[in-house]
Amino acid sequence: MDAGGDGTVTVLARGEGLAAWRQIADGVAADIEAGRLGAGAQLPTEAALAARFGVNRHTVRRALAALAERGLVRATQGRGTFVETPRLAYPIGRRTRFSEIVSKAGREAWGDLIGTETVQADPATAEALEIAPGASILALQTVHRADGTPLSTARTCLPLPRFAGFDRAYATLGSLTRAFAEYGIADYTRRSTRIHARPAAADEAARLDLAPGRVLIVLTSVNVDAAGVPIQATRSLFAADRVELVVEG
Amino acid sequence: MDAGGDGTVTVLARGEGLAAWRQIADGVAADIEAGRLGAGAQLPTEAALAARFGVNRHTVRRALAALAERGLVRATQGRGTFVETPRLAYPIGRRTRFSEIVSKAGREAWGDLIGTETVQADPATAEALEIAPGASILALQTVHRADGTPLSTARTCLPLPRFAGFDRAYATLGSLTRAFAEYGIADYTRRSTRIHARPAAADEAARLDLAPGRVLIVLTSVNVDAAGVPIQATRSLFAADRVELVVEG
Repeated sequence: MDAGGDGTVTVLARGEGLAAWRQIADGVAADIEAGRLGAGAQLPTEAALAARFGVNRHTVRRALAALAERGLVRATQGRGTFVETPRLAYPIGRRTRFSEIVSKAGREAWGDLIGTETVQADPATAEALEIAPGASILALQTVHRADGTPLSTARTCLPLPRFAGFDRAYATLGSLTRAFAEYGIADYTRRSTRIHARPAAADEAARLDLAPGRVLIVLTSVNVDAAGVPIQATRSLFAADRVELVVEG
Repeated sequence: MDAGGDGTVTVLARGEGLAAWRQIADGVAADIEAGRLGAGAQLPTEAALAARFGVNRHTVRRALAALAERGLVRATQGRGTFVETPRLAYPIGRRTRFSEIVSKAGREAWGDLIGTETVQADPATAEALEIAPGASILALQTVHRADGTPLSTARTCLPLPRFAGFDRAYATLGSLTRAFAEYGIADYTRRSTRIHARPAAADEAARLDLAPGRVLIVLTSVNVDAAGVPIQATRSLFAADRVELVVEG
């Protein structure tokens, strides 16, 4: 493929068997893989790409859809199409901590608190937290980011009264690990993680800045304190395009 | 909801705000969850369901699509729609063995060999197996079933000449564990597993008896013998509707 003035692909091989949309997709993919289009970079508009390649917008749209399908770009409602970040290797084990994992990868970790409620524990949550069904829990809805890109959104349930006010600590500190430290929990471990995968619903996709229908990896996990008492039952939805879970043997 | 002579839902609540397709989907879902429609049971044809509920086939089709979207039924090309089996809990750890896990769940495990080739190791496979890039490997294409239902399809790479003839052993024994035993490997452990998820391509879906586009959990793993020497590098595609991975902390 030829390169334009900015180093990106601009010339199509006409009549050589590969459809134009496919050539555009492959060219942009090569630019991404070679780093000419960096993570987070915004692609030109459909109209600009159509003009550059001398094709119609339908062809450009098909190329962009193919790139999104391969997880290389993400289309956001109204704001354009952006190059996806390479998948973060995310170890699942006894000491799984979002903020540590993201920081070690050289990216800035932050968790946004987007909702809090005090509710009665349903039977599954009560069993996970080893509390009576119907006992009060604090449920936090959060979005977890690496360098601003959302990697996951979670619902975390904590037993009350032990963690009363935890939502305020979390909102200030942006990290479960740091908020637990405020509650005297210097160390905690993962008891178990169950892993499922399914397409994102519209509201989940919006929270993760994903196109609806992109795949989520669903993690259901329980953490315990040093005495083995459950402190946290969480259901996390990770954008499958942005992480790769790693389990060491 | 009312129940028909066979215990399944047949009567729709007209004009009560819920669309007919939604009522049919919810009714069938309730029948599945209550066990009135068992795992593997075939649903009546679209025409029969349309007649039973007094709706058109478009409405039935929409209800079935909603059930498939929820992972409760699977539509197979030309053979009808079947109730999905509850998800098998599949532990990922040092001793992950398909045949053991499935047998413990009270289901019959079997692996079908659907293809074999002798090829040169690509760089990633060579690194995983700790052999020279380009060295000969045996690559097996397999489908792994529980009570006949495909849970996963895999490509397993084994170093040569150590595992010459392994394909024949596998085809006879239907299990990697049993085939390794024939090669003097009484025990082996999982070194690492990487986990990703994405929609199934058409050929992958066909091999797993899934509708195209259903979600796959992709596991990339390496097993080592008692001396720590890699014996197997595998990429497994699990039907997300049929398993739930479990990682103990």
